[in-house]
Order: sequence, then structure tokens, then C-alpha cells
Amino acid sequence: MQPYQFTKSQALLERSARVIPGGIYGHQTPAVLVPGSYPYFFAHGQGAHVWDVDGNEYIDYICSYGPIVLGHRHPKVEEAALAQMRQGNCFNGPTERWAELAEHLVGITPFADWTVFAKNGSDVCTWALEVAREHTGRRKVVMAKGAYHGTHAWCTPMPAGTTPEDRANVLTFAYNDPADLRRVVETHDGEVAAIIVAPFRHDAFHDQELPVEGFHQSVRQLCDDKGIVFVLDDVRAGFRLHLGGSGEYFGVRPDLSCYCKAIANGYPLSACAGRDALRRAAQRVFFTGSYFTSGVPMAAALACLRELEACGGIEHMRHVGTLLQRGLEEQARSHGLRVTVSGPPALPFMSFRDDPGFERNKLFGATCALHGVYVHPHHNWFLSAAHTEADIRRTLEVTDLAFRAVRERFA
Amino acid sequence: MQPYQFTKSQALLERSARVIPGGIYGHQTPAVLVPGSYPYFFAHGQGAHVWDVDGNEYIDYICSYGPIVLGHRHPKVEEAALAQMRQGNCFNGPTERWAELAEHLVGITPFADWTVFAKNGSDVCTWALEVAREHTGRRKVVMAKGAYHGTHAWCTPMPAGTTPEDRANVLTFAYNDPADLRRVVETHDGEVAAIIVAPFRHDAFHDQELPVEGFHQSVRQLCDDKGIVFVLDDVRAGFRLHLGGSGEYFGVRPDLSCYCKAIANGYPLSACAGRDALRRAAQRVFFTGSYFTSGVPMAAALACLRELEACGGIEHMRHVGTLLQRGLEEQARSHGLRVTVSGPPALPFMSFRDDPGFERNKLFGATCALHGVYVHPHHNWFLSAAHTEADIRRTLEVTDLAFRAVRERFA
Repeated sequence: MQPYQFTKSQALLERSARVIPGGIYGHQTPAVLVPGSYPYFFAHGQGAHVWDVDGNEYIDYICSYGPIVLGHRHPKVEEAALAQMRQGNCFNGPTERWAELAEHLVGITPFADWTVFAKNGSDVCTWALEVAREHTGRRKVVMAKGAYHGTHAWCTPMPAGTTPEDRANVLTFAYNDPADLRRVVETHDGEVAAIIVAPFRHDAFHDQELPVEGFHQSVRQLCDDKGIVFVLDDVRAGFRLHLGGSGEYFGVRPDLSCYCKAIANGYPLSACAGRDALRRAAQRVFFTGSYFTSGVPMAAALACLRELEACGGIEHMRHVGTLLQRGLEEQARSHGLRVTVSGPPALPFMSFRDDPGFERNKLFGATCALHGVYVHPHHNWFLSAAHTEADIRRTLEVTDLAFRAVRERFA
Repeated sequence: MQPYQFTKSQALLERSARVIPGGIYGHQTPAVLVPGSYPYFFAHGQGAHVWDVDGNEYIDYICSYGPIVLGHRHPKVEEAALAQMRQGNCFNGPTERWAELAEHLVGITPFADWTVFAKNGSDVCTWALEVAREHTGRRKVVMAKGAYHGTHAWCTPMPAGTTPEDRANVLTFAYNDPADLRRVVETHDGEVAAIIVAPFRHDAFHDQELPVEGFHQSVRQLCDDKGIVFVLDDVRAGFRLHLGGSGEYFGVRPDLSCYCKAIANGYPLSACAGRDALRRAAQRVFFTGSYFTSGVPMAAALACLRELEACGGIEHMRHVGTLLQRGLEEQARSHGLRVTVSGPPALPFMSFRDDPGFERNKLFGATCALHGVYVHPHHNWFLSAAHTEADIRRTLEVTDLAFRAVRERFA
């Protein structure tokens, strides 16, 4: 099989670079992939498959970095979005979908009494901390070192353009270390408004770490003891592990939970769900945007969340994700290569051991992309409910080539 | 004519209030309208008209607080959005629309060499200041007192949930007062990274103020003299006064210009356009979001901007807006009422003199809403290219009732 070529992607990147700083920015920056071995621009998607602008087809394990949870162009989501689009989307106030989606989300989220909606994951993570500050009358927030909670200045992974004041109220601890967290909180006793954590550690350029036994429960207990608001950043993992939020999956109930990504199968929506105790503060912290009440993404979200439940999508992702994880482990072993497969099956990641520069991962990812399987060299992957066992089998044929390439290059 | 009733709107608000703090939040908060006299939920839009969930029809002078610039469900925009939707929207990278829209926007914006895209007006205003900080190596930013540049903590109009550190680097001056601006900048000489201003003063609860002769030019000069980045917040007014941005309309060229609202006729998109000198800094300030590269809003924006040019929409908004403004002035005079009609015709506002509590404006707006004309009691209004002279005539029949109601109540 001839490896793919990316002539049109490359040409579009050059056109873009003339009128957009860097051509493509943020988490899709071409420089973070392997130049020449990945497509940059996409033309079409259907189910678990995407086609780039050169017509190359891929089994898609990034799912648009999370949003595509049912597969691209899922008919029920598209139909719901289209029906709402025919009525209208963006008005002087919300549509009926506003109430309907809030009721649905509160209904499936055991700890939640209310929800709000926005557009970006960053929007809701930042707002949640402001609500915690308003509720507690305190200023400090605690996050895990190296965690990603959005692009806002208090937490962006890149310091450019930020000021020391932006982080004056941010404290950090080591994820999965309850003693370190307690030390940080006790050093600032009475000053901490919120602790924000992801349901598991999914930092880029790291193997993923599931929460150690009792970690989330210790966060919960500490929050209860100290009157601190527990914010779960479920932007990345939400609706891939449990319909009620990843807190349910790991046996903990936060005070506020932030969603984006998988909530509407690619339609632009984020949400924060919360407890009654925080309702008054939530009402006081100003939150708005030109498109916050638009109907189409909410119609899509209702269809997405209902279908995810109806089709058993979460269980299915666990099943196909497990096949992929086990397949990769066996294949690596058969090639005599040492890998770490990490994360829950629906959001897996694989790295090569003793490969701090991710050089093996880059070659592995590039070889996969050149042969029709889209995985990422240093960011966790995503399964969708559309991935089939046949997709996994085909994927493992391609990863076999990729393991071979790694073995040959790094022998 | 029987005034409208809002039974279903009210019921939906009550349902929403159980599961959403305040029921509806932000700029659409029901409390800021006149309870019982405005609809809260919308079902349909077509051209310059919207229908609420009770089936009441309105001539819409809020246009979803700006986004609807060609009229609701404009066929060319809907067709372009739908064509992109059939291909797919949200991928692991952008679609071809990314390059195409950036080229188009740079092409119509005389000062701009590049652009970036995001989802909210707040996103781009905050990012623009970060780019200015990165470019200059300075921390302070200057904004007009009372101006609205989004919900982020450095500028939200409500202090709840913010900390003193959030505003530690924000200085303010009086809009339209170049001497005050110079004084602020000189007091912090060498520390100011950016001056951010709207093209005209459109603060809520105020008459609008056009820039006084030479105001923007003095901002430009001061920025040039002091090495400060001139950021134009064109989120509200962009593409309603001039296709090349409101700077062109007022005879000034900023360094960065922020757009949202009218850019895509209601599809979720914002943008920041900038000069080459800032390209390197722009590339360094991290900016990303789950839906930033999605194709559908970009297809909509391309269709919207092209149609706005092809149909002479900006000239048309000026024409019908002028008819509305002159009509209101004459009608007020005929009722013996003193009003101030302010702002450019495409974004007009009207207030009653000697009415600091906006009581007359509330009655005026409520009477209009009860009879099929949607204006706002204390926020500027918006025309679209779909408003016809017949709409204005029908509107003036309704405003005649509203002026009579004000005259009778406040006689």
C-alpha cells in the first residue's frame, strides 16, 4: 500500500500561514504533529472515518479532540440540528431547547441541581472558579501541576501574554497526591475557594494516570472539611466514561462539573452543572456570550445525549477501546517493543518506554497517519460509539506496520 | 389590537428557573426587560421578523443582540452552512473554509495582514490584549470607563467572583476625552501595552456617543508615539457601518480589531484581525478551543460577508435606520415628548430626556413588545439588511401607540 500524500493539505497550510499566524494555531498546530506525515485540513467525516482534503481516508482516533462521540454526522444528531436550524438558531432569547436540555442534563447528573451553557471548555472552567470565589468569599484556587483547564491566563500552558497577577491566586499540587493537596490547602487555610481537578490525569506529553484509590474521595473530604468548592473539569472525558459524568465513574460527586467536547457531537456547546448550594453565587457571576442561548447546538446535545444512552455508546466505547488497548499491547510484545498503554479504554493513549523525546511515538503516529489511522503522538486518543470491531482489526493491521517501522528505525 | 400574551414564555421561564440559575442569564436576563411585557423564548425567525413561543410576531430591532445582520434564515447563509454541514463541521483540523475566510477577511480589511478565529467576543478581546502584552513586554491596558469588552474578569460589568488582581493592570479613561487618555498613559509611561476602545460609545443605560472629531486619530497618534497597541473592539458594531471595519467608517486604522456578532449572521464565530508587526506575538499567545476550526460557521461567515457586500446591506441599514431615527424624532415631537435618538442609524437607540431610571423607556419598550415591535429599553438596537421601508412604517404605527402610552402615564 502506497503511503498517503498531503499535497492539498500542504498547499492550504501555506495559504493559511500567509493570513493566519502560524497557519493553524492552538491544539491543532501542525508543528506538534510530524511535518509531512499528517494531514492538516479535512473535507468530510462519516461515522468513525474522516477524509482529508487530499481524499485520504482515516479511521479517526482523535474524534476532533473529543467532540465526536457518536461518530461524524450521526443521523439522529444531524436531523435534530437540521430541524432546529429550519426554525432558527440565534434569537433575542433562548429557544425551548434551553429548558429541555437543562432538565435533561440535570436529570442524568446525580449531584446536579442546575446547569448553565456556554461555548468553550475554557469559558466554563473559569466561570466555575469565579462562582466558587463568589460563594466562599475567598480568592485562591488549587489545580494540579501541569493540568490543562483551558487557555485563560490563569491556566494557559504557555506564559506568553500573561502577567504575574493572572496567577497570583493559583496554587498547585501534584495530581494523585492527597498529602500534597492537603499541605497546599493547609498552608493557605481559609483562603482556598476551589479545588479543580480532572477525573484522571490526561496531560499531553505524559502517560495518562487513573486516580489512585481514594484520591477523589480525599479531595471531596478536604473540600467538605474546609468549605472548599470541588470543581471537576470533565471537559475532556465527560460522557465517555459515564452518562452521569466522570465523577460517577470514579465514585465521587463534585460541587460543580464542567463539560464541553462530547456533549453535542461536534456542535459548539459547553456546560457547567452545579449543586443548589451554589445557585445564588452562580446567579451573581456574570456569564454571557453572543451565541450562548442558540438553539441548534442544544438540539444537537439533546439528540447526542439521548442517543448515547439509547445505543449503549459508553459501554461500546469501553469494549472497542479495550480491544484496541489489548491489541496494541500484544502487538508491541510480538515486536519486542516496550510500550505503556494508559487511560480508560474510551480515551486511551500509548507511549514507548524510554522515549522521553517522543521520537518513537512520532514515528508510530506518522506511520499510522500515512496508512489511514489517525492517532496522536503525544495527546490522548478518543474512541466513539461508531468505531466497530472491524475498524479495530483494520487499525491493528496498520499499527503492525507502525510497530515494525519503530523497531527498524530504533533497533 | 389586543396586546400580546406570553403564557408559554412565562411557563418556560419557570421551568428554566428550576434548573438554570435565574432561568436565563447574562445579557438576556429577564429582569432587565419589563416583566410581563416581553417574550423570553423564541420559536422562529425569518428576515426581519421573529416569532416567540406563544406565536406572537415581532419586527426585530435587536437582531439577537447583533448577530443577525442579513435577517433571520437568510437563504444564502443557510445554504452555505447546510452544504458544509453535509460534509462535516468539526474535525481534527480545519476545513478549506479556514484559509478561504481568513483570506476574505484580510482582503476586505484595509489595515489587516492576518486574522484568527474563536467563538465569543470575550475570547478575542482578551486575547488581543495578551498579544499586545507579548508584543510590548508591558502589562497595563487602558479602556474607557463603563465600556463593555466582554465577561472576562478584567472587564466584566459585575464584580461578583472577581479578585482585585484581575484588574491590577487595567487603567480607565473617559471615552471621547483625549486629554484624559493622555494623562492616564503618561502617568504610566512605558507600562501601557494596549488601548482598547469601541468605535463609538455604546454602553448600556446610556445614550450612545459618536466619537468626537479627532478622538480616534488622537488614540492612534498616542499609540504611535508611545509604542502602544491600538485595539478596536468592533464586536458590537463590526460589519454594520463599513465592510472594512468600523475604523474605516470613522477614519482610523487600529493595530488589532475584534469581531463577533454580525460576522456570520448568527453562526458562532468571532475573529481578531491584525497587522504584520503583531504576527509573531500573535503566534506565541496560546489560543484554542474545541470548536475554533469548525467549518459550518466559517462557511456561514463567507456567505454572510459576500452577501452583505453584494446586496449593499450596509447602505441599506443606514437608509432604513435613518428612516426609523427620523420617524421617532418626529413622532416624539408630535406627542410633545423630548427624546434623544443616538448612535449611527444601523445601531440606533432612543431615550427619553429627564428619565434617569429609564421608566419612560421601559414603558415605551414594553408597549412596543406588546404590539409586535421588539426594541430594548436600555441597550442599543440593531437594524439588519432585511428590514424594509414597510417594516419601518409598521414600526412607527406601533411606536405611536408607545409614545401615547408614555404621554398618558407621565403627563
